[in-house]
Amino acid sequence: MATPTLQLACDLIARPSVTPNDEGCQDMMIARLEAIGFQVERLRFGEVDNFWAERGSGQPLLAFAGHTDVVPTGPASAWKFPPFEPTLHEGMLYGRGAADMKGSLAAMVTACEAFVAAHPDHKGRIGFLITSDEEGPAVDGTVKVVEWLSAQGKAIDCCLVGEPSSTHEVGDVIKNGRRGSLGAKLIVRGIQGHVAYPHLAENPIHTLAPALTELAKEVWDEGNEFFPATSFQVSNINGGTGATNVIPGEVELLCNFRFSTEVTEAELKQRTEAILARHGLKFDVEWNLSGQPFLTRQGDLVDAVVGAIADIKGRQTELSTAGGTSDGRFIAPTGSQVVELGPVNATIHKVDECVKVQDLEDLHLIYRRTLERLLA
Amino acid sequence: MATPTLQLACDLIARPSVTPNDEGCQDMMIARLEAIGFQVERLRFGEVDNFWAERGSGQPLLAFAGHTDVVPTGPASAWKFPPFEPTLHEGMLYGRGAADMKGSLAAMVTACEAFVAAHPDHKGRIGFLITSDEEGPAVDGTVKVVEWLSAQGKAIDCCLVGEPSSTHEVGDVIKNGRRGSLGAKLIVRGIQGHVAYPHLAENPIHTLAPALTELAKEVWDEGNEFFPATSFQVSNINGGTGATNVIPGEVELLCNFRFSTEVTEAELKQRTEAILARHGLKFDVEWNLSGQPFLTRQGDLVDAVVGAIADIKGRQTELSTAGGTSDGRFIAPTGSQVVELGPVNATIHKVDECVKVQDLEDLHLIYRRTLERLLA
Repeated sequence: MATPTLQLACDLIARPSVTPNDEGCQDMMIARLEAIGFQVERLRFGEVDNFWAERGSGQPLLAFAGHTDVVPTGPASAWKFPPFEPTLHEGMLYGRGAADMKGSLAAMVTACEAFVAAHPDHKGRIGFLITSDEEGPAVDGTVKVVEWLSAQGKAIDCCLVGEPSSTHEVGDVIKNGRRGSLGAKLIVRGIQGHVAYPHLAENPIHTLAPALTELAKEVWDEGNEFFPATSFQVSNINGGTGATNVIPGEVELLCNFRFSTEVTEAELKQRTEAILARHGLKFDVEWNLSGQPFLTRQGDLVDAVVGAIADIKGRQTELSTAGGTSDGRFIAPTGSQVVELGPVNATIHKVDECVKVQDLEDLHLIYRRTLERLLA
Repeated sequence: MATPTLQLACDLIARPSVTPNDEGCQDMMIARLEAIGFQVERLRFGEVDNFWAERGSGQPLLAFAGHTDVVPTGPASAWKFPPFEPTLHEGMLYGRGAADMKGSLAAMVTACEAFVAAHPDHKGRIGFLITSDEEGPAVDGTVKVVEWLSAQGKAIDCCLVGEPSSTHEVGDVIKNGRRGSLGAKLIVRGIQGHVAYPHLAENPIHTLAPALTELAKEVWDEGNEFFPATSFQVSNINGGTGATNVIPGEVELLCNFRFSTEVTEAELKQRTEAILARHGLKFDVEWNLSGQPFLTRQGDLVDAVVGAIADIKGRQTELSTAGGTSDGRFIAPTGSQVVELGPVNATIHKVDECVKVQDLEDLHLIYRRTLERLLA
């Protein structure tokens, strides 16, 4: 017989909530939360369903954050089992969203149910910040809910994000921060001309080369205890008319920084443009910040989560800031401590996405123990 | 009343011989040459009409070389006058091919007519090497005729190519050689990956940059009395998947050398590959030789042409090896002296191509005087 966590995970997976559609997932969660005393605000922005739920009063406010949308399945025929028909096979639960992150959502809800049953008059408040636009543009989701919370004067103290943080088994890795991500579209200009008359032209591919050499070799920082060193990568470079006898008038690059808390966005921009200018380049650069780096050092939340994992799994956990971005980048700037803890991420965004059934139960227990450590 | 040269130029322009079509231009030339005692071999290779014509016996063999095909007109509505309706306007003859190179063809034929009338028993031989595939792939044109000549045991001593060599007025510049042209398609390989995990990838754009810096700065030679220094240019560079979060697996460059007689094709290849290898790059390179450099130093032909220009125009002429390639590159390797002399090239390959009517008469006189200096 399915446990409550497995059952709810299956019910959520059965709803094909491809981003930005929610397909009724949030209604299911809201019904469960209202039944145990949560007050719920549905917050629809643009085409995106979101909600905020809250139980209790005073501080601290411990919020669970997550998303009901999933990435597309690709060709369903490539899957072992239909992606929106949750299937148990050899101890695994298969389905799109099983790991990212409907399993986490189910474990959060059932953890609260158990915790509230045992501690109806718990300290502080429990919150839920749920969106259906994490896998898409992420414009009408968590960003807007955070703005709404701020306008309401609500400040989250601790935020537990259900992103699949684990590598081999649930709880082996939690994310206590993420690197920043800063993009640049760089256009270096020269003077177009015929390759037979190079003295009448200026080849921007040639003038770029030494500057690019320097950018690629530059040590932007050394990282720190929590972050690897900041890295610079050119993802795309394109120049030329296609003709083999024309010196192009410009070359365009797309670049990306993944950066630590040891440098700022402003420093990266200034240092990049200084290198380009020192090489005498004529250039335009368009910057695009995807996210500031954020970091939750040791403190109440990290202690509670690490302690909960030790209690339930009898193991140490690794704190990491590696990997891509998550909605944590929008919550951390409010001053909240942010930790990401969820199942093993090996199959996320792939065909045959799955999660170990036992991991869902363990995740339920770890979330519940975290509630106990902070609010009991 | 039109002179014979102007009349023949107009008759040739009226035939829309867009490359590789001849549209009967060669028949017109052949009829005129047979009338003054030339023996003609029509040489059709593939889709291309060519002919070889010859008059006289023994050495030296002075050949006129040229092409009846023209480049496309682009939108005819952009022209002042219909491009295949030769039009006289303010002392200029307008029409596609007026300068490149039907005006020269007309002047060659009429120069021979006048010369043969005055010197029916001239020394040596006069030849015509005419193709309709100079502006196209140049595969079934001059190359094949040169092979045929060789098979016949015929060796050209002096070749006067009618390409528009002049800058401001006819005869101010002649070409006594051309730089070589060597192309390369270079693929530099790395290891594709996610920009968030650069330690698992190897960015070929980054590894390329220092090698490209060195290639762009390299002094390949200093040129010489006749040639500018060899130049290297990257005409196209492309790398990246379009995604901003992917480190590409490879980057592709199209490069071109314009090279003097101070280096060889083999040296350029060897030195380029040595630079790439010294930077530890994994690369593939595909070489494509468009033409070897060639040079006709002072000698019978240069002396005759320079003298003829002095006789007719009362001016000095500049010897140059600048500019793009021409069919001279196929004739020079046979051991022939090669000089290019034709009208002003300001409008070639453009709309409103035109030539000064007086220049056609002067060109006729210069060709004729060259014949007299070499064969009278």
